[in-house]
Amino acid sequence: MDYKFINRNLTPKEIASLSEDERSSLCKEIRDKILNVVSQNGGHLASNLGVVELTVALLSVFDYTEDQIIFDVGHQSYAYKLLTGRYESFDTLRKKDGISGFPRRSESPYDVFDTGHSATSVSAAVGIARANELNDKNNHVIAVIGDGAMTGGPAYEAINDLGHRKDRVIVILNDNEMSINENVGGLAKHLSKVRLSGGYLKAKRATEKFLTKKIPILGRPIVAMMLAIKDFFRFLIYRKKPTIFEELGLVYYGPVDGHNMKELIKALDSVKNINAPVLLHVCTKKGKGYKHSEKDPSHYHGVSSFDLEKGVVIPSRDSVNSFTDCFSKTLIDIANKNRNVVAVCAAMTDGTGLDEFAKRYPTRFYDCGIAEEHCVTMASGLAIGGKVPVVAIYSSFLQRAFDQILEDCCYMKTHVVFCMDRAGLVGADGHTHNGIFDISYMMPMPDMTIFVPTDYEDMTLCMNHSISKMDSPVAIRYSKAGEYKLEIEHNILSPRVIDDYGKDFAIITCGPIQKEVDQAVENLKNSGYRGININLCMIKPLDTDAILNLIKGVRNIFTVEEGIINGGFGANLVAELTANGFEGHIHNIGIKDPMIRCGTLSEQFKVAGLDSGSITDTILNHIKH
Amino acid sequence: MDYKFINRNLTPKEIASLSEDERSSLCKEIRDKILNVVSQNGGHLASNLGVVELTVALLSVFDYTEDQIIFDVGHQSYAYKLLTGRYESFDTLRKKDGISGFPRRSESPYDVFDTGHSATSVSAAVGIARANELNDKNNHVIAVIGDGAMTGGPAYEAINDLGHRKDRVIVILNDNEMSINENVGGLAKHLSKVRLSGGYLKAKRATEKFLTKKIPILGRPIVAMMLAIKDFFRFLIYRKKPTIFEELGLVYYGPVDGHNMKELIKALDSVKNINAPVLLHVCTKKGKGYKHSEKDPSHYHGVSSFDLEKGVVIPSRDSVNSFTDCFSKTLIDIANKNRNVVAVCAAMTDGTGLDEFAKRYPTRFYDCGIAEEHCVTMASGLAIGGKVPVVAIYSSFLQRAFDQILEDCCYMKTHVVFCMDRAGLVGADGHTHNGIFDISYMMPMPDMTIFVPTDYEDMTLCMNHSISKMDSPVAIRYSKAGEYKLEIEHNILSPRVIDDYGKDFAIITCGPIQKEVDQAVENLKNSGYRGININLCMIKPLDTDAILNLIKGVRNIFTVEEGIINGGFGANLVAELTANGFEGHIHNIGIKDPMIRCGTLSEQFKVAGLDSGSITDTILNHIKH
Repeated sequence: MDYKFINRNLTPKEIASLSEDERSSLCKEIRDKILNVVSQNGGHLASNLGVVELTVALLSVFDYTEDQIIFDVGHQSYAYKLLTGRYESFDTLRKKDGISGFPRRSESPYDVFDTGHSATSVSAAVGIARANELNDKNNHVIAVIGDGAMTGGPAYEAINDLGHRKDRVIVILNDNEMSINENVGGLAKHLSKVRLSGGYLKAKRATEKFLTKKIPILGRPIVAMMLAIKDFFRFLIYRKKPTIFEELGLVYYGPVDGHNMKELIKALDSVKNINAPVLLHVCTKKGKGYKHSEKDPSHYHGVSSFDLEKGVVIPSRDSVNSFTDCFSKTLIDIANKNRNVVAVCAAMTDGTGLDEFAKRYPTRFYDCGIAEEHCVTMASGLAIGGKVPVVAIYSSFLQRAFDQILEDCCYMKTHVVFCMDRAGLVGADGHTHNGIFDISYMMPMPDMTIFVPTDYEDMTLCMNHSISKMDSPVAIRYSKAGEYKLEIEHNILSPRVIDDYGKDFAIITCGPIQKEVDQAVENLKNSGYRGININLCMIKPLDTDAILNLIKGVRNIFTVEEGIINGGFGANLVAELTANGFEGHIHNIGIKDPMIRCGTLSEQFKVAGLDSGSITDTILNHIKH
Repeated sequence: MDYKFINRNLTPKEIASLSEDERSSLCKEIRDKILNVVSQNGGHLASNLGVVELTVALLSVFDYTEDQIIFDVGHQSYAYKLLTGRYESFDTLRKKDGISGFPRRSESPYDVFDTGHSATSVSAAVGIARANELNDKNNHVIAVIGDGAMTGGPAYEAINDLGHRKDRVIVILNDNEMSINENVGGLAKHLSKVRLSGGYLKAKRATEKFLTKKIPILGRPIVAMMLAIKDFFRFLIYRKKPTIFEELGLVYYGPVDGHNMKELIKALDSVKNINAPVLLHVCTKKGKGYKHSEKDPSHYHGVSSFDLEKGVVIPSRDSVNSFTDCFSKTLIDIANKNRNVVAVCAAMTDGTGLDEFAKRYPTRFYDCGIAEEHCVTMASGLAIGGKVPVVAIYSSFLQRAFDQILEDCCYMKTHVVFCMDRAGLVGADGHTHNGIFDISYMMPMPDMTIFVPTDYEDMTLCMNHSISKMDSPVAIRYSKAGEYKLEIEHNILSPRVIDDYGKDFAIITCGPIQKEVDQAVENLKNSGYRGININLCMIKPLDTDAILNLIKGVRNIFTVEEGIINGGFGANLVAELTANGFEGHIHNIGIKDPMIRCGTLSEQFKVAGLDSGSITDTILNHIKH
């Protein structure tokens, strides 16, 4: 496609003065560019395709150099990036040293707030609006949030506060009837009722016209009052139910067709003039404008590179090609035999591999929405009721429930099984999504057991053990990188010797990073150093005696882990070994600086100093004679 | 008062068959007992006095040996404890080895779920109800939650899920128009509107009677359907707005006078028969039945021992007797000069010492409700807008916002100042409220600075430095124990030598636990060991060079901290010192097992092995020659 607009670095004024046809062309160009780049680089497709018109409309009505627009989760900010100075660099999307798939303040002055985890945008907007108010700044602050993110507690906390304090914030609810999979929750039903109430918008329109047209700033409080009165009359005349947002103190506008540019601009012009917190309800179609993603938006939420013509090949779970597949299959095997096993997830049925389980055992499956805190406490309730809940949440999202894991599970010692996918580095999503804190924050939790499988056989054993042989909280963390097959007897409870060439050093590690370690051991052998190579699967509690026994006579210990070094696996090994009389040198290798931005997994391993070459060098530098 | 009922260990049947007068006497006895014990032992007074009738009504309608009642936060469970087997032990409330001020599964089979932090009860109830459903158990599951806790995101997440899945859970909203202080948020306004809609309950009653009376279990789905139809007609006829809870998919009942036993029992009887999630809205008066607490419920929320006749003496902040006082005073001093300073808290204006600030600077003060996650992200927004937000949240509650501190503050390096009161052991509230994880989970966070003041001079310096001289996230953790005055030059950035008697050992510590350490150093001197005694105020980042310089020639290092040992101050010191070439022995002293239950502060210090005697013994046992 020949581009006429997207490549022109349009100023806010130029965007505002585009004709209807030009806007339509611009939207086509944006979709084309997004499709071309995402099909090459991978990324969030369906969510970005859904908000093209909304973004163009937003930038037509608001001035992105003055007004502050915050995208919740941020996986719908591609169109915004293309229009705010990042067209030229867009081909580097999600690549090393390229632009991020999420808003990043470090990337552009027009990325107002970094997002990645959901349901934070309203809080951020409220904070910024409050600062602006105190600073006598008069620009607009806008949070664009999906209905999926609206299931998250923090979004509710923010709206509750906003409705109370009446800050001038515009919340745009991008209602596509989906979160990542089908949307869940009472709110979703409420919204669909609102969508179906056809006359609503019309009724609003009639009164709106004379209320919001060209009202000077001084007159705005009056408008707010008149809107309240109007709402009262509307209620009497039309008997329309107010929305939840109105009940919480916001002015509600909508629903508006999110692919009708004229309607969008009209609505945005209206809400722009209200001196009160407003929620504009925009209905969009996730995946809009690309036949494959329109048909099946779930599978086009986040994609790897794919053929634009044929669409994404949806992998079957028949062969086990990832820890996710292995989790999926093993859980069904266990659940077949043990009817007490139930599964819980937070809006990630497909991503976590629970799709098959959900199909087979719908009454034993709970998708609680993007609501990690509720998931964990609810799971503890299930455990108290005699079930064995398996909570499948990505590592980086589970950290939202730190307090609930500690207080609602560990302190009561309830048997909740946490399955943490995407633990460690995750590649192109970058630092906000790396799951590198789980070991560190779970280590101090009482009665928590932690497993780190290295291959799928480990994974199967860990799941069986955790579900069937334990009665206390347990976490299994597994990597996006996939297995590294161990050629040993798979005892998950004791340290395993991978090889034992001598006493120059010992390396102790856990998880598939063993692959890099094995290569490093080879390198060291070539440099004349021979040591012992130990892999652990259960890293909490530690089998300290067995480890001390294995490293007898070794003075140089190195630990390697795919996680934050501070408070991690290695740090705890140091504490345990020294407390038990070990007197040699221990050096921890792991992630020092968590700001590991996007790139491929192997690029991220290099940045973190966790590739075999870096591990070899670190050991050579620190080995003591 | 002579007791006739409370001391008889009434069975559920006996409670159910009490006459109206007997119930009234029972309520009087409960209040009398609570007042007597709390005025002796301290505890949560106003919240417990407010739910006496509600608890008696609950136990009259439901069978506590079968049905499962979960008290949110748990600071309103005293009446429940008195009626479920803990009358005899009630005098030991909040004392060492006594009964807890919160529900504890370890204490009684009738304490269904441990609570302490707020907004978890609905999630727990939903989980338990789901397990019951799968187990074909037919008992009732009830969550009793205050309107304050309803500002918490997890409660909303749970109601959203409950309204979607339609589990049979009864939510009792104890609406006392307060959280800990005055309630805030759009929801509070919504509830007050509902309360004012007088005819509402009457209208419901009319249809209710024929709907819910003696309906066999099989007929219950029909009732649910009829209630929906009824709601529709009610809407047409009475033009009453539905409540938020109805919009989210729950059946709503109320409002009911929470001190009118007859009305309460009638309402509970009704909701008992509904086979759908129900919310019963009960209006109570916080502090009911004691003149002082009725007048001023905020100051009777949590109390120390006091004179029943005279009431609680409300301490003035004129003299500085605690870190809270010091925080309060210092913040005002700084805010007077720097108008960019703003303050944020989560429903704890008084407790955190922000009351004075709130009075002086209402436009710069934000009480966001019990909503720690929103508080932190919102604060980061304030920082991005050019303000310096001081977030005052108790250590143990701030752990709710782990993800927000990391992702929304540290990753963007926004200048948010976390002031964590009640860091360390907190005494009678017990393990759920001990603030012992903050150091451990903040240590790995990038760009986070951590200060631990030992005395009020430190505190003042830390606040001035954090607010005026930094531009990145910083946390100040301070103890309930109050200051331990240091007789040294107060340099908060470098290690301070308290005394230096020799090279047998070095003790490195932070915070007022220095008091125990100083005594231990004395003891050790008497045993013939002379060492160096070092206090740190800034514990992250560590001034490693300066420390290495001070401990030159010392082989035995001991660290002492009032926090979890795993990943804590000492563990990080080990990592830093060994990575920088230190080769001696380091032994960390801190809290190993976080399950430190109620007791006085000094009793808890002993249990934790953190009193001077235990510290002395540990050092003597581990010192190497």
